[in-house]
Amino acid sequence: MYSFTNDYSEGAHPRILKALLDTNLEQTTGYGEDKYSLEAIALLKEKTGRQDVDVHLLPGGTQTNLTALSAFLRPHEAVIAPDTAHILVHETGAIEATGHKIISVTVDDGKLVPDHVKRVLDEHTDEHMVKPRLVYISNSTEVGTVYNRSEIEELHKICCDNHLLFFMDGARLGSALTCSQNDLSLNDLPDLMDAFYIGGTKNGALLGEALVISREELKADFRFHMKQKGALLAKGRLLGIQFLELFADDLYFELARHANEMAMILRKGIEEAGYQFLTDSPSNQQFPILPDKIITELQAKYGFNIGPRMDAENSAIRLVTSWATPWEAVNEFLNDLSARKNII
Amino acid sequence: MYSFTNDYSEGAHPRILKALLDTNLEQTTGYGEDKYSLEAIALLKEKTGRQDVDVHLLPGGTQTNLTALSAFLRPHEAVIAPDTAHILVHETGAIEATGHKIISVTVDDGKLVPDHVKRVLDEHTDEHMVKPRLVYISNSTEVGTVYNRSEIEELHKICCDNHLLFFMDGARLGSALTCSQNDLSLNDLPDLMDAFYIGGTKNGALLGEALVISREELKADFRFHMKQKGALLAKGRLLGIQFLELFADDLYFELARHANEMAMILRKGIEEAGYQFLTDSPSNQQFPILPDKIITELQAKYGFNIGPRMDAENSAIRLVTSWATPWEAVNEFLNDLSARKNII
Amino acid sequence: MYSFTNDYSEGAHPRILKALLDTNLEQTTGYGEDKYSLEAIALLKEKTGRQDVDVHLLPGGTQTNLTALSAFLRPHEAVIAPDTAHILVHETGAIEATGHKIISVTVDDGKLVPDHVKRVLDEHTDEHMVKPRLVYISNSTEVGTVYNRSEIEELHKICCDNHLLFFMDGARLGSALTCSQNDLSLNDLPDLMDAFYIGGTKNGALLGEALVISREELKADFRFHMKQKGALLAKGRLLGIQFLELFADDLYFELARHANEMAMILRKGIEEAGYQFLTDSPSNQQFPILPDKIITELQAKYGFNIGPRMDAENSAIRLVTSWATPWEAVNEFLNDLSARKNII
Amino acid sequence: MYSFTNDYSEGAHPRILKALLDTNLEQTTGYGEDKYSLEAIALLKEKTGRQDVDVHLLPGGTQTNLTALSAFLRPHEAVIAPDTAHILVHETGAIEATGHKIISVTVDDGKLVPDHVKRVLDEHTDEHMVKPRLVYISNSTEVGTVYNRSEIEELHKICCDNHLLFFMDGARLGSALTCSQNDLSLNDLPDLMDAFYIGGTKNGALLGEALVISREELKADFRFHMKQKGALLAKGRLLGIQFLELFADDLYFELARHANEMAMILRKGIEEAGYQFLTDSPSNQQFPILPDKIITELQAKYGFNIGPRMDAENSAIRLVTSWATPWEAVNEFLNDLSARKNII
Repeated sequence: MYSFTNDYSEGAHPRILKALLDTNLEQTTGYGEDKYSLEAIALLKEKTGRQDVDVHLLPGGTQTNLTALSAFLRPHEAVIAPDTAHILVHETGAIEATGHKIISVTVDDGKLVPDHVKRVLDEHTDEHMVKPRLVYISNSTEVGTVYNRSEIEELHKICCDNHLLFFMDGARLGSALTCSQNDLSLNDLPDLMDAFYIGGTKNGALLGEALVISREELKADFRFHMKQKGALLAKGRLLGIQFLELFADDLYFELARHANEMAMILRKGIEEAGYQFLTDSPSNQQFPILPDKIITELQAKYGFNIGPRMDAENSAIRLVTSWATPWEAVNEFLNDLSARKNII
Repeated sequence: MYSFTNDYSEGAHPRILKALLDTNLEQTTGYGEDKYSLEAIALLKEKTGRQDVDVHLLPGGTQTNLTALSAFLRPHEAVIAPDTAHILVHETGAIEATGHKIISVTVDDGKLVPDHVKRVLDEHTDEHMVKPRLVYISNSTEVGTVYNRSEIEELHKICCDNHLLFFMDGARLGSALTCSQNDLSLNDLPDLMDAFYIGGTKNGALLGEALVISREELKADFRFHMKQKGALLAKGRLLGIQFLELFADDLYFELARHANEMAMILRKGIEEAGYQFLTDSPSNQQFPILPDKIITELQAKYGFNIGPRMDAENSAIRLVTSWATPWEAVNEFLNDLSARKNII
Repeated sequence: MYSFTNDYSEGAHPRILKALLDTNLEQTTGYGEDKYSLEAIALLKEKTGRQDVDVHLLPGGTQTNLTALSAFLRPHEAVIAPDTAHILVHETGAIEATGHKIISVTVDDGKLVPDHVKRVLDEHTDEHMVKPRLVYISNSTEVGTVYNRSEIEELHKICCDNHLLFFMDGARLGSALTCSQNDLSLNDLPDLMDAFYIGGTKNGALLGEALVISREELKADFRFHMKQKGALLAKGRLLGIQFLELFADDLYFELARHANEMAMILRKGIEEAGYQFLTDSPSNQQFPILPDKIITELQAKYGFNIGPRMDAENSAIRLVTSWATPWEAVNEFLNDLSARKNII
Repeated sequence: MYSFTNDYSEGAHPRILKALLDTNLEQTTGYGEDKYSLEAIALLKEKTGRQDVDVHLLPGGTQTNLTALSAFLRPHEAVIAPDTAHILVHETGAIEATGHKIISVTVDDGKLVPDHVKRVLDEHTDEHMVKPRLVYISNSTEVGTVYNRSEIEELHKICCDNHLLFFMDGARLGSALTCSQNDLSLNDLPDLMDAFYIGGTKNGALLGEALVISREELKADFRFHMKQKGALLAKGRLLGIQFLELFADDLYFELARHANEMAMILRKGIEEAGYQFLTDSPSNQQFPILPDKIITELQAKYGFNIGPRMDAENSAIRLVTSWATPWEAVNEFLNDLSARKNII
């Protein structure tokens, strides 16, 4: 039984565990002020090409989203997000629990465009409605699609023009930045986004997301918010050591590239077997549309999520690859799919 | 330079890191539904002697406090806590941020007694004031003191008699349950408390607290609250594997016993050197009162927190021992203290 | 210049002001425990036909919605509401500010049906999503439509079957219960709804809404929530005296009947002039679709809101009648409309 | 039975009711944008001597406190308040419900001094604690005492020096500004406070408080916060007309002067009868200390609150006078007190 259910099925990349072992008995300061966290933060500043950003290490994605957004917004300010957004669907109302409405925008492929934002602004005209203030996007999106530079620049522009903050959920930023459709690099982001995060959990770490804040007015007192929301780990070194290892050389991007490569082999094989996809995803989440009969058979041997249903006999499934996905598993899956194809 | 600053200066107990390594490449379900978390939860139920409790694994102490208390309380309900309580002083208003007032009670030694609770109840009589609903204590307390069974039973009784929930912050529960003044065991707690947690972070884990909920009406939907507050780690196995290791045999208590033993050697040596203590602590936090001159000299060689000031020439300091504190460090500290004693 | 902009353009019905004058210098207890408020509450219980309901008087609609919903829900629980719902669109995120997500459902005519609810339930399956817990409807709706008994009964049934609370925003309940399409009476409501309110502000009072809670488990401590949310007026008598006057005889329903009658004359006249309507409204809000040219001319003489645009040359407008709308104003509007009709 | 229980026992001053009657059938814009509200706001700006302040009319005191403080503070920021503060004791956790901790300071006479503030600042040093950001005082205080100009100036200075906001709860500002110990006038306040409010409810209005915001950075979007918190009345004219009447001439201050005069007669008479007072109050709340036996007898004929108990045989009571208190009631109370004095 091999699982394509998600990209956090295994522990951590072995180099990360080794780094934890090597430093284990050193005594360090608590709450993220240890030397490893400080070094990791310095390194990430360097990698983003901007010494003036603030970087904070937080344990998880929902935690990062809720801590950042509640810190950035005043009580009457709202978030604009595509209807597929993780914060809208799969975080149990974490943002609303901090008091903020998320304005949902219906999109086709997980991606927001300036027109979506404009329409929301046009509809929110006075104090009887919330005030749209922050545009939230995920890259890669929850349906595997990826923003290219011009798309991000256009959103950046409409945000600038309308006093809106621009935030990127980068839970799968590694996969986005290393996929074939990408033309952005990590050090483009601080100039284009007011804040974004670099996901570790879904790219080889045990846990950890690195939040980068580039807009000056959002920086003050951020550690107060982290502490208040439970995001300041006593052994903050646990995050520092991991990000240090991921970015000491190119490990973070290597892991993501591997995940994408496995996804592309899957995609190509499934296409060759004659199936279509729910989205045009160049990243580590693939959504092939398969006959329900075949899905049932594949489930006996592979783990994956099912949905949405496309018609009476076909459904989309979600296959997620990761740094840990072996080529053999991908190959076997494709063989099994082809074999079943012939039967039907 | 050896640090007595806290009990989370090192990584994790080596057995825990080994367990993480041994299981690293296995694929497991996410969000705490993996087999290790489920086994750890089953084991903890067994250790608490009650199959009907609910157990949840959360990343940290502030996170656990805010998730539990906000889940347990309705908007108008408040917490009663001693003025030394961690939630009152050192969690950046995390509980208030979820909407709940904490009613502070002035205590001498970090410990709440029924009279404190009674006085709060007497003062809160109608809907113009918050409704006291949950009594929060820490064991061991923030000043190292420990509750014995009869003290807990008396608080339990006044809670039962007044429709109050009784909650124990067990960030340092290991030290409390293994110290000389203790006459409670882990499986007394579910009958005495409505909910409590077993701290891992300060007793050998990388991170992790195990929340035990014994009151039936508090159990429903708790995982929703965890997710909403960012407390549900994608790789929940990280918590499960650690608690499994800590409780597979007696490791959790062994580590705590060692910390207490080191603390008692420190205490005895400092007493013999002629100094007094801020509190009568039998646990892993000791608060000797030393001349400021000596404190300054010790700071050159040891890390620790200072405060409060006692008079013009003396201050209390806080020395914290842990599972990782070597006997040699303790011994050297005592030697250095004695040496300085003679000089002055 | 006559305004059809809303039903709160005037002060209060003269009988209400007289009642305030008559009682003005009597001394009463504060915060809604005065004899007038108690009498009003007793009277409203009688009018709803249920002695076991709780009744509370609150100053306004948004205030009532946010106080009630935040009192009724636990932090992870969400509201299901049609996309036209006042709480969703025109209350500046008041519900979200108390921590709760509102799940928006696209509807045609402002009205929710069981299928909408079912779909939301089907989509919300685990703790990664909020838990739908309360169904919110307005009667009459924000687009003037009205629920009949069987529609309410069907929603009641799906709520019962799925452990959902059922709440009615009755800001315009008077108009709903006295319109031609209605087959419900005030004393049907406590059996069908878990809570609902009887709007005073939009039916002749200076301010005030009477919240009726019929579900036992929602009653406890409600006055705490009112106080905490600023909804407990020091001079609560101001609300009591008004509701007493409105319900001492049939005044409340008389005022609503008048508003509906004026609306029906408007509707009939506009239909006869050859125009269509955005919704099939039998209540005091009418949404005729008129040529933009005519709208511009009418604006010179009448106040009303415009929108939405229907096509390049026509828009819907909103005409609201009230207890205070004189027949002459209605007649003049229709004459002006007919006159312009001929010109074009 | 005459009640000295509070200053909101009657309806409104007759001139206010008359103004409501005179304007009753005029149609006005809703939500505080009517001409009366706009005129009242313009008038209040004039009376405060600063055209650049923002003025908002809100229905009640708790509502004003919670709306203002939650609008002014970021999530990690806290309020400093004396332990007698209304927001701390008698608002059911309204401020905490918006997410903010109130740091309680023990004071003798209801009044905060710079040293109290300094001590709080000294104790709050890092991100593990909330960040003190706003100093809250009431004038007159909850125990009847009043701040003079130099006291306010000193608090103003320590706030300026430490980046703290300075807020005055003026629920009883009329009484404060017209009492014998006062040396401040309404137009001193915008220069000394960042925001304050002028209480109407306790000085002759049916309901209503006028919030004055003088600090530029606190002004933006305040009406959004009002709407979100349910503080924007549909018939906002109800507040505008009342404040217009209260400040059209000197009515507001006349009413307060009368209340103070009645209080001073009470105070003098009770002193002459040989009794002491809990506080040195020059305003409309008096706290004489009386033998319990006499208190019991007085209760048969007068309404008032009792407490705190001073010793085995004596308690303080609270007598509140208002614009509506007749001299005869005061005189009779004093006669009854003297008569009883002789008996004991």
